[in-house]
Amino acid sequence: MKEFDTIAAIATAIGEGGISIIRVSGFKALEIVDKIFKAKNGLSILNMKPYTMKYGHIVDMETSQNIDEVIISFMKGPRSFTAEDTVEINCHGGVVSTNKVLQEVIKAGARLAEPGEFTKRAFLNGRIDLSQAEAVMDIITAKTELSMKSAMMQSEGILSREINNLRARVLDIVALIEYAVDFTEDEEEIDPQIPIDVANKLRNVINEIDKLLKCADEGKIIRDGLNLVIVGKPNVGKSSLLNALLKEKRAIVTDIPGTTRDVIEEYINLDGIPVRIVDTAGIRETEDVVEKIGVEKSKEKINEADLVVFMLDTSRELDEEDREIIEFIKDKKYVVLLNKVDLDRKLNFDALKDLSNFIEISAKTGFGIELLKEKIKELFFNGSIDSESLMITNTRHKQALYRAIENLELGLTNLNNNEFLDLISIYVTSGLRALGEITGAELEEDVVNKIFAEFCCGK
Amino acid sequence: MKEFDTIAAIATAIGEGGISIIRVSGFKALEIVDKIFKAKNGLSILNMKPYTMKYGHIVDMETSQNIDEVIISFMKGPRSFTAEDTVEINCHGGVVSTNKVLQEVIKAGARLAEPGEFTKRAFLNGRIDLSQAEAVMDIITAKTELSMKSAMMQSEGILSREINNLRARVLDIVALIEYAVDFTEDEEEIDPQIPIDVANKLRNVINEIDKLLKCADEGKIIRDGLNLVIVGKPNVGKSSLLNALLKEKRAIVTDIPGTTRDVIEEYINLDGIPVRIVDTAGIRETEDVVEKIGVEKSKEKINEADLVVFMLDTSRELDEEDREIIEFIKDKKYVVLLNKVDLDRKLNFDALKDLSNFIEISAKTGFGIELLKEKIKELFFNGSIDSESLMITNTRHKQALYRAIENLELGLTNLNNNEFLDLISIYVTSGLRALGEITGAELEEDVVNKIFAEFCCGK
Repeated sequence: MKEFDTIAAIATAIGEGGISIIRVSGFKALEIVDKIFKAKNGLSILNMKPYTMKYGHIVDMETSQNIDEVIISFMKGPRSFTAEDTVEINCHGGVVSTNKVLQEVIKAGARLAEPGEFTKRAFLNGRIDLSQAEAVMDIITAKTELSMKSAMMQSEGILSREINNLRARVLDIVALIEYAVDFTEDEEEIDPQIPIDVANKLRNVINEIDKLLKCADEGKIIRDGLNLVIVGKPNVGKSSLLNALLKEKRAIVTDIPGTTRDVIEEYINLDGIPVRIVDTAGIRETEDVVEKIGVEKSKEKINEADLVVFMLDTSRELDEEDREIIEFIKDKKYVVLLNKVDLDRKLNFDALKDLSNFIEISAKTGFGIELLKEKIKELFFNGSIDSESLMITNTRHKQALYRAIENLELGLTNLNNNEFLDLISIYVTSGLRALGEITGAELEEDVVNKIFAEFCCGK
Repeated sequence: MKEFDTIAAIATAIGEGGISIIRVSGFKALEIVDKIFKAKNGLSILNMKPYTMKYGHIVDMETSQNIDEVIISFMKGPRSFTAEDTVEINCHGGVVSTNKVLQEVIKAGARLAEPGEFTKRAFLNGRIDLSQAEAVMDIITAKTELSMKSAMMQSEGILSREINNLRARVLDIVALIEYAVDFTEDEEEIDPQIPIDVANKLRNVINEIDKLLKCADEGKIIRDGLNLVIVGKPNVGKSSLLNALLKEKRAIVTDIPGTTRDVIEEYINLDGIPVRIVDTAGIRETEDVVEKIGVEKSKEKINEADLVVFMLDTSRELDEEDREIIEFIKDKKYVVLLNKVDLDRKLNFDALKDLSNFIEISAKTGFGIELLKEKIKELFFNGSIDSESLMITNTRHKQALYRAIENLELGLTNLNNNEFLDLISIYVTSGLRALGEITGAELEEDVVNKIFAEFCCGK
């Protein structure tokens, strides 16, 4: 294991809470904390047993004054999150106390950790692979229990095992090709069974990757949320629909004040699917004002959406703008909500003949909301969510799989065209490398740095 | 020690962080967590040693599926925060994971803790007294390091010792009176030295309490912040002053996005004094609009303020509204800021002859800001802050001390009027009781409940 310097950061969320944790990791962790920790029993912590705790105070190194009352715990590497010696200081929650303790740890010799640096060390020290490291972040930012479950599975290495299994099989193909090449004087003399075997093996691996990719879009939705956009004329009922959706299944995330309120987006939890409603502020503002629908603006929002909810007022006639929207959403995933069905019907259904996925609702009473939810699950998850299949949730992994499949398919095509095995070996090796990017087995350092830089501080 | 039921709550701040802690306290803490914890080594935690940790998973009781990867730690009562058996579950930070683990703990038999209930148990179990319990909350909400230090001192029992010492002395007076009354047949026959001794002792105690109260206003400011209001006409420079103040000494509190931004108040940190600027939003809005100063509104704000900063533009003449404000602030603590001193002076200083505390500033360049800060410290802390004397920071304690002093003085007055010692005993006993309210030695249950209800959840 490499020996890194010792880093420290606040590992809990910032805010007013009962307890905060300052995490210190590195080979000098105990030594640094020992300088500023005065145990109740007066003893040094340098000989502290792993996986035990000590009660005492963090003191100012210069004045010896008590800064905070704390409990410290010690996890000896490699049996720790980072796989390094780790000391955690449980101090009083609150912004000032936590920062003050952190300051003291820095003064005593630790370096302030960069975002994601603890998890990066767990990766660099070989305790977890890259996809598991990414899952740690996904657990923290999970928006529903389903997202959480899928991230937990990934952190436990389910994806890693799958990828490692695929890599082993591709490596086997590479070995087979190289064996044939190395032990044959002349390309013409190669055992004719070998290309057949290679082709079969390649086909099998491609099928496996295809299977993984099949659920990648669903996986991404579970991880990042489904972007839903509500379009329709002013006063068609967008605001009521929004409120009905928000009210009924308020996500755990939005139960806590301040977590999402300051951004112009809200998540609802549709049976585990995090649904991000784009531009809720816009909907609320424009509903009060009778204005043009703003076709251009709607088109922009529609382009960003995974799902378009197009609301029509059945008591009004379609106009040119409605028709333009209809034309535009035809090739997207959409649901057409027919609102105000209890009023006189003036809507001409002929104009809607090219559309499907109609649902009659009453946004005010909530009638039809259940049907909308069922429809969403049908459109994205074939009606039911199989969390076991949600293995690919991360766009980076998906892209790597696409690169893998692309190269393996090129190898197969060239094989079928009777190209030299040497050439085929290049494609297959590229496919192998693409798979390795997922677990971090093959990855440039700057890419790794970029991935961890997106983590939150203290993780 | 009483045996309470077992309670649980999230003890860290809510939000996205690396780690969260679920605290479980009560005599069934281990038993409850054991139902949902699967240790890596497969062993039950029922025989876990105090002050040690175990790595494993929280699992769903019904499906046995892993919910989160956790480290649990065990503190055996009375050596824990609550003085009860306490298990802390360190799980992944993040809103969903933390809530999911908490849910599982509740399903396993714990009750969701009320706000402040952990600290309340520490108090009810006799580990800390009431003023120490209140200090725990003050540590968490401390706005500057000075506030934090003063709260730490209180949590360590400095105030408690002071109050207990006073109580002992008052109790001594009560005993002296009762001895005299009990062992004397006739009030006339009482040893004449006794009333003299009682009077002396009373005077001494009153002086001590007076000394404590002398710094109570300063103490309150350190704890709650100094309410500063900036008044003056539109375009006089209020907004520039505000920005200069906020820019120069951005409080630690406001360094973290989201902690104070959503409320219309901001704290600045003036050498440790938390200064709350009232109505910053209002200042920013009204500065752009040339409008009437709004004397009534200013008066309202002035009434709420600890310090009024009255801004005058020396290049303009005073008008009727300015004069009205001047009349109004005369009896408050105030500073008069003379802005735009580099322009032609049109201000008639005769009208300001009743005022003092003038400071020339240039809100734009920051010139004079240091003088303003010095002036604030002079007005409230006689120029320097002696943190040792900041013992009374809490309004509840201040009120109790006032009640104590009031009763003791009544006792003294009656003693000087040669009233019966029985009557004097009643007053002195009331004073004793008032002192006891600070440490919680004498307090009604509903008052105690009210105090803890103001704590945050998980504390």
